[in-house]
Amino acid sequence: MSTLHDRGRRGFASDNYAGLHPEVLEALADANGGHEIAYGEDHYTERLQAVVAEHFGAGATAWPVFNGTGANVLALQSLLPRWGAVVCAETAHINTDENAAPERVGGLKLLTVQTPDGKLTPELIDQQAWGFGDEHRAQPLAVSITQTTELGTCYTPDEVRAITDHAHSLGMRVHLDGARISNAAATLGTSLAAFTSEAGVDVVSLGGTKNGALAAEAVVVVNPEITAEQHGLVFLRKLNMQLASKMRFVSAQLLALYEHDLWLRSASHANAMAQRLAAGVGSVDGVKITQAVQSNAVFAILDRDVAEALRERFRFYDWNPATGEVRWMCSWDTAEADVDAFVAELRRLIG
Amino acid sequence: MSTLHDRGRRGFASDNYAGLHPEVLEALADANGGHEIAYGEDHYTERLQAVVAEHFGAGATAWPVFNGTGANVLALQSLLPRWGAVVCAETAHINTDENAAPERVGGLKLLTVQTPDGKLTPELIDQQAWGFGDEHRAQPLAVSITQTTELGTCYTPDEVRAITDHAHSLGMRVHLDGARISNAAATLGTSLAAFTSEAGVDVVSLGGTKNGALAAEAVVVVNPEITAEQHGLVFLRKLNMQLASKMRFVSAQLLALYEHDLWLRSASHANAMAQRLAAGVGSVDGVKITQAVQSNAVFAILDRDVAEALRERFRFYDWNPATGEVRWMCSWDTAEADVDAFVAELRRLIG
Amino acid sequence: MSTLHDRGRRGFASDNYAGLHPEVLEALADANGGHEIAYGEDHYTERLQAVVAEHFGAGATAWPVFNGTGANVLALQSLLPRWGAVVCAETAHINTDENAAPERVGGLKLLTVQTPDGKLTPELIDQQAWGFGDEHRAQPLAVSITQTTELGTCYTPDEVRAITDHAHSLGMRVHLDGARISNAAATLGTSLAAFTSEAGVDVVSLGGTKNGALAAEAVVVVNPEITAEQHGLVFLRKLNMQLASKMRFVSAQLLALYEHDLWLRSASHANAMAQRLAAGVGSVDGVKITQAVQSNAVFAILDRDVAEALRERFRFYDWNPATGEVRWMCSWDTAEADVDAFVAELRRLIG
Amino acid sequence: MSTLHDRGRRGFASDNYAGLHPEVLEALADANGGHEIAYGEDHYTERLQAVVAEHFGAGATAWPVFNGTGANVLALQSLLPRWGAVVCAETAHINTDENAAPERVGGLKLLTVQTPDGKLTPELIDQQAWGFGDEHRAQPLAVSITQTTELGTCYTPDEVRAITDHAHSLGMRVHLDGARISNAAATLGTSLAAFTSEAGVDVVSLGGTKNGALAAEAVVVVNPEITAEQHGLVFLRKLNMQLASKMRFVSAQLLALYEHDLWLRSASHANAMAQRLAAGVGSVDGVKITQAVQSNAVFAILDRDVAEALRERFRFYDWNPATGEVRWMCSWDTAEADVDAFVAELRRLIG
Repeated sequence: MSTLHDRGRRGFASDNYAGLHPEVLEALADANGGHEIAYGEDHYTERLQAVVAEHFGAGATAWPVFNGTGANVLALQSLLPRWGAVVCAETAHINTDENAAPERVGGLKLLTVQTPDGKLTPELIDQQAWGFGDEHRAQPLAVSITQTTELGTCYTPDEVRAITDHAHSLGMRVHLDGARISNAAATLGTSLAAFTSEAGVDVVSLGGTKNGALAAEAVVVVNPEITAEQHGLVFLRKLNMQLASKMRFVSAQLLALYEHDLWLRSASHANAMAQRLAAGVGSVDGVKITQAVQSNAVFAILDRDVAEALRERFRFYDWNPATGEVRWMCSWDTAEADVDAFVAELRRLIG
Repeated sequence: MSTLHDRGRRGFASDNYAGLHPEVLEALADANGGHEIAYGEDHYTERLQAVVAEHFGAGATAWPVFNGTGANVLALQSLLPRWGAVVCAETAHINTDENAAPERVGGLKLLTVQTPDGKLTPELIDQQAWGFGDEHRAQPLAVSITQTTELGTCYTPDEVRAITDHAHSLGMRVHLDGARISNAAATLGTSLAAFTSEAGVDVVSLGGTKNGALAAEAVVVVNPEITAEQHGLVFLRKLNMQLASKMRFVSAQLLALYEHDLWLRSASHANAMAQRLAAGVGSVDGVKITQAVQSNAVFAILDRDVAEALRERFRFYDWNPATGEVRWMCSWDTAEADVDAFVAELRRLIG
Repeated sequence: MSTLHDRGRRGFASDNYAGLHPEVLEALADANGGHEIAYGEDHYTERLQAVVAEHFGAGATAWPVFNGTGANVLALQSLLPRWGAVVCAETAHINTDENAAPERVGGLKLLTVQTPDGKLTPELIDQQAWGFGDEHRAQPLAVSITQTTELGTCYTPDEVRAITDHAHSLGMRVHLDGARISNAAATLGTSLAAFTSEAGVDVVSLGGTKNGALAAEAVVVVNPEITAEQHGLVFLRKLNMQLASKMRFVSAQLLALYEHDLWLRSASHANAMAQRLAAGVGSVDGVKITQAVQSNAVFAILDRDVAEALRERFRFYDWNPATGEVRWMCSWDTAEADVDAFVAELRRLIG
Repeated sequence: MSTLHDRGRRGFASDNYAGLHPEVLEALADANGGHEIAYGEDHYTERLQAVVAEHFGAGATAWPVFNGTGANVLALQSLLPRWGAVVCAETAHINTDENAAPERVGGLKLLTVQTPDGKLTPELIDQQAWGFGDEHRAQPLAVSITQTTELGTCYTPDEVRAITDHAHSLGMRVHLDGARISNAAATLGTSLAAFTSEAGVDVVSLGGTKNGALAAEAVVVVNPEITAEQHGLVFLRKLNMQLASKMRFVSAQLLALYEHDLWLRSASHANAMAQRLAAGVGSVDGVKITQAVQSNAVFAILDRDVAEALRERFRFYDWNPATGEVRWMCSWDTAEADVDAFVAELRRLIG
């Protein structure tokens, strides 16, 4: 095979348009050669356990899977009986972007809440956290939050703690969809634990792909008290078609990110590029930034014709066609020059 | 990260204990760099369409997924209505090794048939292909065969044709689980089409992982008449949690294998190693080879104590604890010296 | 056995607290005796086909089932592929009262819309009817409306037609949950067809239980163009555990209601009792009726302490604990004296 | 409505071709009138709890449902985690006659065993009870037996005890499909407890419909230690679409049968008719009875042409078209004259 695409082309459509960080590719090479036991009994998956325990505390366990939807469904199934439901923001990835995998594959119900910024609060959760014991109502037994959210916003550790305290007081468990968990730590300047295990979260979907991996996520059980479910995860991962035979390579990607500081370096860079982008476009007349820029995403409203013209050179997605809101994502490989060219083009089109 | 395992260690447990073929790793590097549209609109997935059309005929389409279970469930769902059932061998991977993913995720029923060698025939299919129109019976609307089978045996093109003719005459569709499809072509000395598209198969699970990829399989619709279902595959792949965001890298693995002849070189080598192994162990007293060696697997019955002692140096699996049957698998990286050392050790233990 | 309950006690909790209309009980006796073919090949189910064709037009077919949840899930599954989703009001029974059976058993996603009165409109539908062809989004391929709604309101035929025209123009099918379909016809003074088959609805859940039957509902396919799905209904009904072996008795209940005018007599009576109730309580200070009274339900807000005191003699349900809204239901057997006693007690408590 | 069928016609097709026993019809009338709380908080369902406790022991609880498939799926789901599988006879109703509802709705895998007479044994169970802890294999965590079996045979209490002891020793739970449980007690001359609760069974599907009810079965949890699952049954019954709103009438049917001795009278009569039938046909040349007659069924092989001719007057089903085996069922309303006429006709056709 040979290279079929233009390696010089980069845009602002999504962080999953970017490729592998060179250190991830190197990790695949390092894990290659010879035979390793399949399905998770390899040295890389073993090491990963130690690494997640360092990040999330003793007793945390990692269950590598292929993609974020798989991690989310698996995590939620492990928390819920067959009659369970999940309270989440209407904008949650599990609700909007997984073609109902949580419902269809997981057999779960999502109880959604409208939010201004993608973030739940105890008060918002209460809109759906009721009807316990009523057999007619899907039982709201878990809360799922996304960090950073699908709107690029970020929960503080205290905000997470308020949610987990409230949920636990109602007998509910808490899941954190961490597809962009590294961006949150970079924004907050905290450890990954600060807003997960130390803030009362029970299970995390630990992201890798959006931060420079090929295809690697993991369910991380950070609350060691729910060991019974961990047992179930062995089976749930397989029956949900998320068990990699050559798991050493999935774990190796996660090790490349999380064993040292690549997760943080890459996320910090992507975040910085988003700040640069926000600063640049924010100064252009007719562009209104609509969400706090607390990760690698910038949401903005601009003239539709300008957006279309801009898209001829830079691919990106509409977020809300009704309002003209668009989303611009930065990634680990976004260059300052990319941002500057984008801003210049936008300025040219509007000016 | 660094290498954590012994790269010099190889055994006969499974072809998925082996790592990535160097050309696959190189293909990942070639596909890396810059941005590519996510979720399948990339140049590598596009090229893959042309490659599978060359192999399986015009109109064939490829739907890359993460693993074999995913490919099988997706393929079968695309062939069947909600009331469908699948006739398969009792030893089929979908029946024995997928923790009921076809039933649980796919909502399918498997109607199993006992076989001596893992191979179905029209007569065996008839044991389950009845009750059409009877609402009490899960409707047998598809046949699934495995090539090469889980017992290492191989259907000839004529044998496949007899099955597809029979199935089609009953209104049933035919799926071929080709996790080891390359080994079959290598054994038969034919094209991949000879026993699939040219023999009347409708949908194929095209294997990659067991033949040197990292995690890459594809549903290949080889019967262009079932285009309606292809439309459904767009959605089914996503809702079954098998849609890779960075699909270029999944497709690149499959291109590394199937664009040129790596698939055949690797499979031929693994098959040759199995022949060498069979020849070696077959000459040892007390070892009885139980299945025709028509791929990269050798099945044999030997004394349990000998098996246990052998396992101290070479990991492999019991196939049937009741009879003492074991399975030895060769892979793309099995060396002649590995085989010779194994046979020597076996001879030493028995002798 | 003997009677264990107080036959003189009636309240306003739900129309399913009432028993069997004497004509339904008589119909069970009439259908009894001798042997009839099980599972639907009986004379009563055959006659039912003719009766529903009279009501809904030539080509309409009836599929008797046990309960409303069964009818709804079956109807929606018959309209949708595995990747389908259903646009419905947030207050729809399928969303709030079926413990996620549509999601868990049906594998469907519900895309909900907030409404002031339980009624969808084309504009409200558009809030969720988008993203066609986007594999990440559960595909909105059906609309489900409830007639009369869970809030006691009633669509006019023109309002239904506006919905079906809009839905069909988007390639969506329309289901009508008619658990209280008879109350709607009684309110509107029309045939059942006027707001279903003649208004473009594709499939109806035809209610019986809430209008004097024991346990009898039916999926009625009123759009004869979707015959393919009717074929599937044979199997879907069985696999969804809704196939009665002694179906003659389920059909006999529906015949008792729909062959002559019992459906209309009973519904008209229940509606009239609701009007009497609304007139009575509406004149009491401190009681605010919150929804138009267009069926057998009255929704009202009143002082919580009054509601609690009232409940000591008459059981009824809170509708919205946050606002103090309650629901009072009349049924086929509600007597004028029941209503008057209820109003008098309410007046006494408040006065 | 009026009677549409020939009340004088009776055959040997199935016990569900028969109608309601007059005492069941009377019980429906007794339970009628006035209002009763819906969904199970009624006096009849309450009394039913006492009645099942009398039959099955203190702590037994009854969960009325609509039909046998519903009872079976519900019972098995309540016993199993999401990764569970059920060992059962290949001829089990759950495997052959429920259009895969256990798999599709319940998310379960059935691990089937061939049996000569429909009865499992510890040895037969061991054919599938293995692979505990292996994530690739659906976990065999329950055994399901049918009493009397689909082949009309009957387990003794000791045979059941051998199964439950063995299953429990493996960590498996035991379900008994008792669609014809009364026929078993009649054959054995024991209580219902003797071969269920007293023999170690955990959960029973208690049949009513085949023994003179309209549509009434119940999941009965006879092992009080599994109370956690009982809690789940509240929700599982609803989400599986088996929750009757007017449950008083479902419970009333079961009370009609089980509160006094109707269950036994009817089953004893049906069994006696089967004995008379077996005696009659067994004396005819060319008719070979193929299974022990231990309930209300007679299985026999006879000449296909004779069977076809016989069917012109008496409807019955082929059991095994390959061998010419047919099934003749007696019911609570089978008359001696029916049997004698049948035998006479058979004799005439053969003679």
